Amino acid sequence: MSAIRILGIDPGLRRTGWGLVTIEGSRLGFVACGTVVSNDKAARAERLRQLHDGLAAVVADLSPDEAAVEETFVNRDAQATLKLGHARGIALVVPALAGLPVAEYAANLVKKTVVGAGHAEKRQIQAMIRVLLPKADPASDDAADALAIAITHAHHRKARALVG
Amino acid sequence: MSAIRILGIDPGLRRTGWGLVTIEGSRLGFVACGTVVSNDKAARAERLRQLHDGLAAVVADLSPDEAAVEETFVNRDAQATLKLGHARGIALVVPALAGLPVAEYAANLVKKTVVGAGHAEKRQIQAMIRVLLPKADPASDDAADALAIAITHAHHRKARALVG
Repeated sequence: MSAIRILGIDPGLRRTGWGLVTIEGSRLGFVACGTVVSNDKAARAERLRQLHDGLAAVVADLSPDEAAVEETFVNRDAQATLKLGHARGIALVVPALAGLPVAEYAANLVKKTVVGAGHAEKRQIQAMIRVLLPKADPASDDAADALAIAITHAHHRKARALVG
Repeated sequence: MSAIRILGIDPGLRRTGWGLVTIEGSRLGFVACGTVVSNDKAARAERLRQLHDGLAAVVADLSPDEAAVEETFVNRDAQATLKLGHARGIALVVPALAGLPVAEYAANLVKKTVVGAGHAEKRQIQAMIRVLLPKADPASDDAADALAIAITHAHHRKARALVG
């Protein structure tokens, strides 16, 4: 059995977190994580290009096999929702352009999988990431969230394959 | 003075309209228009890839100099807004990846520019497109809207350049 490389992405127009883990049987491994930042003084299309290029470089450098993107719970105003949608469009299309299957997971399922409760706080996610991936040291909440999304896919991908 | 080629895009997850016009001085010309359709049975990331590939082919084939995307008025539920945001993210990033400047125009300004009223109906836009671009025969509302966005940019791009 060879390790599957999973890229988790936590999309945001200003900061998009990413994290790459491996799963071999039930054994998780940490590869890398980081944040792609867009220049908030640039025009919107240019910012999306920056996110695209940053994520495309991650995909090219780290050769993931599968990707997973957080399905953010939408409870903000329409303009903020539209803006998040732009960033999510890029987060979904970049791995798809590289030919990867792309799964989506609700934020509550990510928290429940990683922390055991659907309403965990950011610091609880960070703490569990350090337990599950001792070698990971995410420098931002976005990178920690992206690792949590990758772990969620590692746990649920077999169930998805069975129902898919 | 040489003609500037302007690509207008009316984004939607199911159907994204596009239209290419030229402007030389104050003289408008029609080049082409069409619709990129995504397969609504495919997964979301795959549908966005289809929109990306369709728009990227239009950009590669028709070599626009500038692009303009409709800033759709958001008055629907959060899930619909997020979905539209995904498609808009692709509509914005594809011309940006090709190095084009990308302008955004509110739907009301597009209607006001083309029809003269901010609350024009679809059929009024179609009728004015036939007046302004006699050679155009848009097969869909989305393609007609995309031509209207391109015309709006043709009218406003000099004013934008002055304030930008």
